[in-house]
Amino acid sequence: VAGDSSRRLIILTEGHTEPITGKTASCVVRYRPEEVVALLDKTQVGRTTQELLGVGGAIPIVGGLDDAPGANTLMIGIAPSGGRIPPAWRQIILDALGRGMNVVSGLHEFIGDTPEFAEAARKGGGTITDVRKNDERDVSHRKGLREECLRIHTVGQDCSVGKMLVAVELCHAAQALGHQAKFIATGQTGIMVEGDGVPIDRVIADFVAGAVEKQVLKHQANHDMLFIEGQGSISHPKYSAVTVGLLHGCAPHGMILVYEAGRENVYGMEYEKLHPLDKLCQVYETMANLVSPSKMIGVAINSRKLNAEQAEAERDRVRKQLGLPACDVIRDGPDELMQAILQLKPVLASR
Amino acid sequence: VAGDSSRRLIILTEGHTEPITGKTASCVVRYRPEEVVALLDKTQVGRTTQELLGVGGAIPIVGGLDDAPGANTLMIGIAPSGGRIPPAWRQIILDALGRGMNVVSGLHEFIGDTPEFAEAARKGGGTITDVRKNDERDVSHRKGLREECLRIHTVGQDCSVGKMLVAVELCHAAQALGHQAKFIATGQTGIMVEGDGVPIDRVIADFVAGAVEKQVLKHQANHDMLFIEGQGSISHPKYSAVTVGLLHGCAPHGMILVYEAGRENVYGMEYEKLHPLDKLCQVYETMANLVSPSKMIGVAINSRKLNAEQAEAERDRVRKQLGLPACDVIRDGPDELMQAILQLKPVLASR
Repeated sequence: VAGDSSRRLIILTEGHTEPITGKTASCVVRYRPEEVVALLDKTQVGRTTQELLGVGGAIPIVGGLDDAPGANTLMIGIAPSGGRIPPAWRQIILDALGRGMNVVSGLHEFIGDTPEFAEAARKGGGTITDVRKNDERDVSHRKGLREECLRIHTVGQDCSVGKMLVAVELCHAAQALGHQAKFIATGQTGIMVEGDGVPIDRVIADFVAGAVEKQVLKHQANHDMLFIEGQGSISHPKYSAVTVGLLHGCAPHGMILVYEAGRENVYGMEYEKLHPLDKLCQVYETMANLVSPSKMIGVAINSRKLNAEQAEAERDRVRKQLGLPACDVIRDGPDELMQAILQLKPVLASR
Repeated sequence: VAGDSSRRLIILTEGHTEPITGKTASCVVRYRPEEVVALLDKTQVGRTTQELLGVGGAIPIVGGLDDAPGANTLMIGIAPSGGRIPPAWRQIILDALGRGMNVVSGLHEFIGDTPEFAEAARKGGGTITDVRKNDERDVSHRKGLREECLRIHTVGQDCSVGKMLVAVELCHAAQALGHQAKFIATGQTGIMVEGDGVPIDRVIADFVAGAVEKQVLKHQANHDMLFIEGQGSISHPKYSAVTVGLLHGCAPHGMILVYEAGRENVYGMEYEKLHPLDKLCQVYETMANLVSPSKMIGVAINSRKLNAEQAEAERDRVRKQLGLPACDVIRDGPDELMQAILQLKPVLASR
């Protein structure tokens, strides 16, 4: 999916060129900018991704496929709850396929399973890639995990707080230190960035733990650190099944708690209050330890809504409240969390 | 599925006519004995279900379809981990379809999706029912739950301990007291017994909580008590995703902890120790309360391996250890747990 040097993307974000609902677009622009020709959003024509998403420099927002003639692939750039195709986008997808373009989507509703899209792709000669499509049918066995390969898992207070981004940034930091580190993508956006992984929220519930265990078993042999992307939250009323299956399936040695400063309610369910970080630390540790020894080793703050002074105050507050290292991996860099991760290595060696 | 007065079952349990792997057979014989003509197990020909499963009276075990000429439906009577069709059973299924019989299966591997079976059904004129097949695509919203309808959820120390049976028995007890009680089946066996429900372990992970919430919303209007069948265990390395999604989706007012006396390790994963009951009580309560107020109100003991004296001693031990009512709903009857459930009603009324 990713890493195809001939891929030239136009990313559909119509009405959602912002970092949360448009997180797929935002992350692909951040980590694959060389592949992105433009974003497609008629409500924001003439602006740049840098202005709206804080990344991507001069990548333009355009109003139609005609305005990005160099693009050969339309990517669906949003991740709505429930994952259905917004009705207004159907014509855009059909137009792209009609021009012979490829379509890449991470929605639950598969583009390739819709007869009119499949037919349009056949006529136009383009391909359809539904990133969430999978055929996982293996249960976990909890055998063969290599303790010399450190497993770090990002877990969240809520959806869409930055668990994927933190895992990628920590993985890059570990690689910069010379480690054989690998990012294990578990969501459609991560897979679009990394080029492999498992769309864990689309796996049949019985096979969630087994599917992520397979990823670990596959990559542990030639890596000494795995950074496994978390999903949802252990307290999320909709998605806790995904979170817990993933947690037990990847059996992390260390967890990093990710949250967005200033968020008080569940995203998209404003009538549900979020639980405090200290409570969530306890619950994640309790649940993880039911299956394998694990501890929370640090906190990653998403401080995008704060100014520099506020962000520093929040960082101090969290360090004191939880007694854990804390930083915003973008604003502060990942060093403080990286130190905590490196300290786990000798602990493992002594087991 | 169930409740079809013309259904005459022969249940395939080849080599597994015992209460755990053969739990589908065992429960259908217990709750739908009038529909069962025979069990099919060449290794146990001439014996009765009463001898091997403790239920069903003189229902015979036979060695072939010819020995149960009154049967019009072949039911797959086992629930193996992973849910694949045992290779040796393919010919039996083909034979049944070839005779024009119907086939009912709760396996993950769908009979109807296998071309040779589908073709045989077409030729023979019988139907294929894959009970786990579903198209659940709705997330939970946590809106509209009716607090006057009591939600009781059976949760487990492990798989295959009797969570479904306890929910059914408590539901029957509530009905006998005049309550409008409904058993909400969440597994293939429960669905085969009740005739409706949701095969929750086969639902896509993102939609587990939503699927069970839909069952609650559907049945709460015309019932004052729902008994929601639990699945797996919150500490099960393979299936905790299912357990937690179900727990959060059904938002139980009260939970009943079900376990089998004498079991020390995870069933089918003998290298994994089970967690003690007091620990599990804490974890279930903590996890349930993240989403909705809930408490553990009693313990259901599966004492099938104990004699009367041992069972009574175990019951006393558990009552003291946990400070909760405890009984084996088959051996002792469900009264002690029913009392605990009835005490929740005024608590709800006062909220």
